[in-house]
Amino acid sequence: MSDRHRLSLGPIATPDRLLLGPGPSNAHPTVLQALSRTPIGHLDPLYVALMGEVQELLRYVWQTDNRLTLPMSGTGSAAMEATLANMVEPGDAVLVAVKGYFGLRLQDMAGRYRADVHTIQKPWGEAFSLEEIEAGLKQYRPKILAMVHAETSTGVCQPMQGIGDLCRQYDCLLLLDTVTSLGAVPLYLDEWKVDLAYSCSQKGLSCPPGLGPFSMGLRAEEKLANRQSKVPNWYLDVSLLNQYWGSDRVYHHTAPVNMNFGMREALRLIAEEGLENVWARHRSNAERLWTGLERLGLEPHVPLELRLPTLTTVRIPDGVDGKAFSLHLLNKHGIEVGGGLGALAGKVWRIGLMGYNSRAENVDLLLNLLEEELPAFKPASPAVAAVAA
Amino acid sequence: MSDRHRLSLGPIATPDRLLLGPGPSNAHPTVLQALSRTPIGHLDPLYVALMGEVQELLRYVWQTDNRLTLPMSGTGSAAMEATLANMVEPGDAVLVAVKGYFGLRLQDMAGRYRADVHTIQKPWGEAFSLEEIEAGLKQYRPKILAMVHAETSTGVCQPMQGIGDLCRQYDCLLLLDTVTSLGAVPLYLDEWKVDLAYSCSQKGLSCPPGLGPFSMGLRAEEKLANRQSKVPNWYLDVSLLNQYWGSDRVYHHTAPVNMNFGMREALRLIAEEGLENVWARHRSNAERLWTGLERLGLEPHVPLELRLPTLTTVRIPDGVDGKAFSLHLLNKHGIEVGGGLGALAGKVWRIGLMGYNSRAENVDLLLNLLEEELPAFKPASPAVAAVAA
Repeated sequence: MSDRHRLSLGPIATPDRLLLGPGPSNAHPTVLQALSRTPIGHLDPLYVALMGEVQELLRYVWQTDNRLTLPMSGTGSAAMEATLANMVEPGDAVLVAVKGYFGLRLQDMAGRYRADVHTIQKPWGEAFSLEEIEAGLKQYRPKILAMVHAETSTGVCQPMQGIGDLCRQYDCLLLLDTVTSLGAVPLYLDEWKVDLAYSCSQKGLSCPPGLGPFSMGLRAEEKLANRQSKVPNWYLDVSLLNQYWGSDRVYHHTAPVNMNFGMREALRLIAEEGLENVWARHRSNAERLWTGLERLGLEPHVPLELRLPTLTTVRIPDGVDGKAFSLHLLNKHGIEVGGGLGALAGKVWRIGLMGYNSRAENVDLLLNLLEEELPAFKPASPAVAAVAA
Repeated sequence: MSDRHRLSLGPIATPDRLLLGPGPSNAHPTVLQALSRTPIGHLDPLYVALMGEVQELLRYVWQTDNRLTLPMSGTGSAAMEATLANMVEPGDAVLVAVKGYFGLRLQDMAGRYRADVHTIQKPWGEAFSLEEIEAGLKQYRPKILAMVHAETSTGVCQPMQGIGDLCRQYDCLLLLDTVTSLGAVPLYLDEWKVDLAYSCSQKGLSCPPGLGPFSMGLRAEEKLANRQSKVPNWYLDVSLLNQYWGSDRVYHHTAPVNMNFGMREALRLIAEEGLENVWARHRSNAERLWTGLERLGLEPHVPLELRLPTLTTVRIPDGVDGKAFSLHLLNKHGIEVGGGLGALAGKVWRIGLMGYNSRAENVDLLLNLLEEELPAFKPASPAVAAVAA
């Protein structure tokens, strides 16, 4: 028995941050209360009833009738992996439409499941046209087209009209990343003919990170049923998970019950507010931010018509050390904004207004700080050294 | 926009259960408080400091110096899968010592990673001898021996002395399931020469389910470094995770920050109490239970020398409907005990005394209920129908 690694710590004392980055966003206070309830068993009849409520409300926020709609017991990336793990069989052609960091992740994951992976590419900050997607489908004849609705790395919202029809025409499943759109940006899984979708808990849903909503339509179910071999991922195997989430209630893994308490409360709040109202609130607060940025001479990276209400990429002005300013916001004001990722590293800040945090007072607070404290970080100013210190 | 799935629900209202089954067990009240703190960013310097504390305290409870010790962002089953996903290359011989349900799960998972899987078997309720293990190693010459320290399905604690030495002798990695032993039952990863281990958050650690502690020693790291292909599981890829948990802090996935707040508090409490004291408390309360069961004429399924302090399998007396009695405990008294799994389904109850719940008052409460209310469920008694109704 060794005490070598026995740290002696005080109780946890994290501060109350305002999280205006790419996520996690702040959780709603009643979601945090739900999270701290006494756990119950994962086969308790009361828990089974709660599972049904979570599934039904996920269908509501996704606007889908998909039977196989459930939260994966991991973060959004686990749900992303679940879509590919269940669908891809070795050698399947998969086309990934890459226009940012999370497209690259889809490409990496699909390869690990031994897909024959192809990509079409757009610069980070742009979206695909229907013609570009059709050209890709024609050239590669994929079994799955994987793409990102709301690119968290660029702030682009991909227009979805017509893509689902194209996929049916080319006999291809449509797999959609809705991590930064679910519960915040208009999203119609069934109307858009999306076959597989995933999301996360910590953005539009106002829940802490830890669950990955997942939905699978009938065309995808059919591909799953026709697999020649077991899903090469036990934890995320939907055929096993469905025995637990479906009517049989066969034990698969011990569910993260407290996270699901939080998820149930988060979804309940959205249903109470009404999805149209939630979407409109996100739109209106994003517009308030964009107007304010324009007034301050700060430039969004994405053209207005493609801009995501949940996440705005703002170009860091020439000569400003973007990292120093975001650290200043964090340490002096307890406000987190994100930096750029991948091709946009060092070039943009990422400002998130998601779920509980999409409120006018948060927009105004951040705009005021940009107005009053950013000038000191500009190279012309002699005050830089003093404030940054 | 459809309101078809828009449930209108009241706030969550789950009751305070006493969870004396196979897990989840009750979480410590201060762990639940930690869980409900405002989230912070997964790259926030304060969160990075907390990650280090969690890793160091996991080393303490596992008694290991392993650098690669961290909680996977999923439940214990995800951590189980992480050990195999990272280690197995297609065609690797893997020997699984199966003596219960979780051995079968290891077998299933290893096959999905295209291992050449072999098993040695023992009846559910027994453990392997050193001779039996050596015979298996000699016959199959595996690259990995996978086994369960504390079998949650049977209540057996596998004696570990000598197994690690045998594995080194046969040039084989030792992979150990410590789901129902970590933070509760004597466990010495390094002394036992364990190369890979995993556990869960909701048993000995007194945290809700949702994190899967994982540890990998240097011999396993070497096998990982020599892989010919990428780990066929992006979410659980330790080479990627290590870039986040190691010194580089490269973003991998958005960490379940609130669950890790809870984990940090859970581990802090164990360090405060002292691991020897924690182990002794579990032993003493289990003995209190076993003495009481004997007094009541109830028979543990596992011989004393192999019995787990955390989980006791008790044979359901002839003629008693075990499921009806456990439903009675749940509905009338808010107490959960588990049923049998797999080969023991319908034959045993599983009584857990784990972490925060390993307390004398819980033992006495359950023994009193067994004494006073079980007789009515016995077939000879005319009162059965009345109480069960």
